[in-house]
Amino acid sequence: MAEHMSQSELDYPFKLLEYFNGFRVSKVIFSACELGVFDLLLRSQEPLSAQHVAQELGTSLDGMERLLDALVGIEILEVEKTDGTALYSSTDVANLYLAKGSAKSLHDMIVYQSQTIYPLWNNLVDAVREGKNQNEKTFGLPAEEVFQAIYRSEEDMLKFMGLMNSSWVLDGHDVVTAFNLSGFQNVVDLGGCTGALAREMAKAYPSSTVTVFDLQQVVEVAQKHFSQENDAIVFQSGDFFTGEIPTADLYVLARIIHDWPEEKCLTLLKKIYDMCAPGGGVLLVEAMLFENRRGPIMTQLFSLNMLVQTKGRERPPSEYTHMFNKTGFKNIQVCRTGKSYDAILAIR
Amino acid sequence: MAEHMSQSELDYPFKLLEYFNGFRVSKVIFSACELGVFDLLLRSQEPLSAQHVAQELGTSLDGMERLLDALVGIEILEVEKTDGTALYSSTDVANLYLAKGSAKSLHDMIVYQSQTIYPLWNNLVDAVREGKNQNEKTFGLPAEEVFQAIYRSEEDMLKFMGLMNSSWVLDGHDVVTAFNLSGFQNVVDLGGCTGALAREMAKAYPSSTVTVFDLQQVVEVAQKHFSQENDAIVFQSGDFFTGEIPTADLYVLARIIHDWPEEKCLTLLKKIYDMCAPGGGVLLVEAMLFENRRGPIMTQLFSLNMLVQTKGRERPPSEYTHMFNKTGFKNIQVCRTGKSYDAILAIR
Repeated sequence: MAEHMSQSELDYPFKLLEYFNGFRVSKVIFSACELGVFDLLLRSQEPLSAQHVAQELGTSLDGMERLLDALVGIEILEVEKTDGTALYSSTDVANLYLAKGSAKSLHDMIVYQSQTIYPLWNNLVDAVREGKNQNEKTFGLPAEEVFQAIYRSEEDMLKFMGLMNSSWVLDGHDVVTAFNLSGFQNVVDLGGCTGALAREMAKAYPSSTVTVFDLQQVVEVAQKHFSQENDAIVFQSGDFFTGEIPTADLYVLARIIHDWPEEKCLTLLKKIYDMCAPGGGVLLVEAMLFENRRGPIMTQLFSLNMLVQTKGRERPPSEYTHMFNKTGFKNIQVCRTGKSYDAILAIR
Repeated sequence: MAEHMSQSELDYPFKLLEYFNGFRVSKVIFSACELGVFDLLLRSQEPLSAQHVAQELGTSLDGMERLLDALVGIEILEVEKTDGTALYSSTDVANLYLAKGSAKSLHDMIVYQSQTIYPLWNNLVDAVREGKNQNEKTFGLPAEEVFQAIYRSEEDMLKFMGLMNSSWVLDGHDVVTAFNLSGFQNVVDLGGCTGALAREMAKAYPSSTVTVFDLQQVVEVAQKHFSQENDAIVFQSGDFFTGEIPTADLYVLARIIHDWPEEKCLTLLKKIYDMCAPGGGVLLVEAMLFENRRGPIMTQLFSLNMLVQTKGRERPPSEYTHMFNKTGFKNIQVCRTGKSYDAILAIR
């Protein structure tokens, strides 16, 4: 996406046509995930014909053939012709990130993007026009109560929590090691959801105690569906807006602030500041915009995502620094990881 | 999209994340088109603030700012900061292809993709499962009667015809000059819609007579909305499946065969063969797959598009050659243009 639009693009807009095809490429990968194509190819250990895949997964042959060929076209799968039959096999990237069972699987993130985010983005024009999320138009859900919409049923809650869980597969280790946090004994991850990031934290700092603090219904589902044997983390339930928050040496706020307008963020940061002993602090994790507004493109797209789905936005580091300063935090360091999510450490 | 997935992609799947963002990039461009961003920037002649753009186009400032920034991120727009205010300006590519008024505007194609194709693709999983189009699930329209669905109202017909009209902007000249067709006196473009390709034909071969043949309701809308002063082409109405077709030296079939299953295509080609004098022929225009199934990716995606919307598919040249041979045509030449659409000339 970073290639510059050149003169030849004026003669024939290949790049632009690729952009127009973007939604098709996304849906090709998403649909293959939803249908279980990558899981089947990983299990099978040998290349399979389209007929075999279609039969195993209960799809039409014609549709599966076209889907598999498009996956070859974007180099997610490979094909060889043997005795006139096309045989498809997976790639290392697909096995690692797209198959369901893999430790680095992004499967749940993909399902959420396909089934929830993609339809929301169909109303981007209205979101820009109105300056507000499209939960109501897309799903008949209230625009005001963002998490009431996201957590509308246990099934939807599970989907969203799956998204949250799998999205720390990629950046979790990087953001918890962006700073040396070994000096913080008690760590509380506010809105820590399934505990995926908290587990990364506990792994990186084995002598710290890491607690996930989230809404009661979230904690229940997390413990039921996402807990691990000998789990290194503990759960505590509550509402960080309306109730009290536990004491801690370090508060983690990962992808929380981006859900809300500044006023609400300031209230939360002030509440944390008041509970925080001097020397304690906040690890804030977000995808951060460049100060000059020119990127990263992924974060600019995330910010539009926040527009269509929440009441928040993505921000450049200066806006977080401003909020930290305003609520009393002093020693503020920014670390860009070079991946999707960045980190800020603020000390009281 | 042709970059190979490398080892580093295993360490961190940047390319995969870009694919996941594909639908967002598409919708950013589509929405900016629908809102008139590129038209306003082209008219204004000077860089504009987000506030100015939002006010002129009646949108929220917040939403417009995020949209403009994302357009900068994908290098469709440019931004400069002057006295602390971000001022946005268009690029040559956007002025040429995305603004509505330009001779090479793809605006109507984009609106159709955004409003019709994008929602259809939300049901790709079902299309692959069932092996049939998703007009019913997406729009409540009959799956069997493809063009009844597409032409369900004058408004929808206009949108579809706009798509067809603007899609020859890019490849029209190349496909009509893929072969020297100056020897054909009477040319009939079967299913020629708005006449966009027929006009390219008339321009390239000024001594030929070019007729657009399409359904009566299509011809009416074409003449009302897409006719030109001193139009070089004529229109004739009829149904090439159920009625008679006019005599001609050359029949053009541009993006017709890809809408239908082979049996129906053979019936049409036989009908043309019977009307065609020896030495006459057919110019078939389609996006053509490689014989080895590995691309072009755009055509593979088009073929899935045919699955979700029609009863047809994209094919490699050998399948068209096979159909031509089967109906009696003999001298068959294939020309790949290197752009989206290719051409085959078949002579009786």
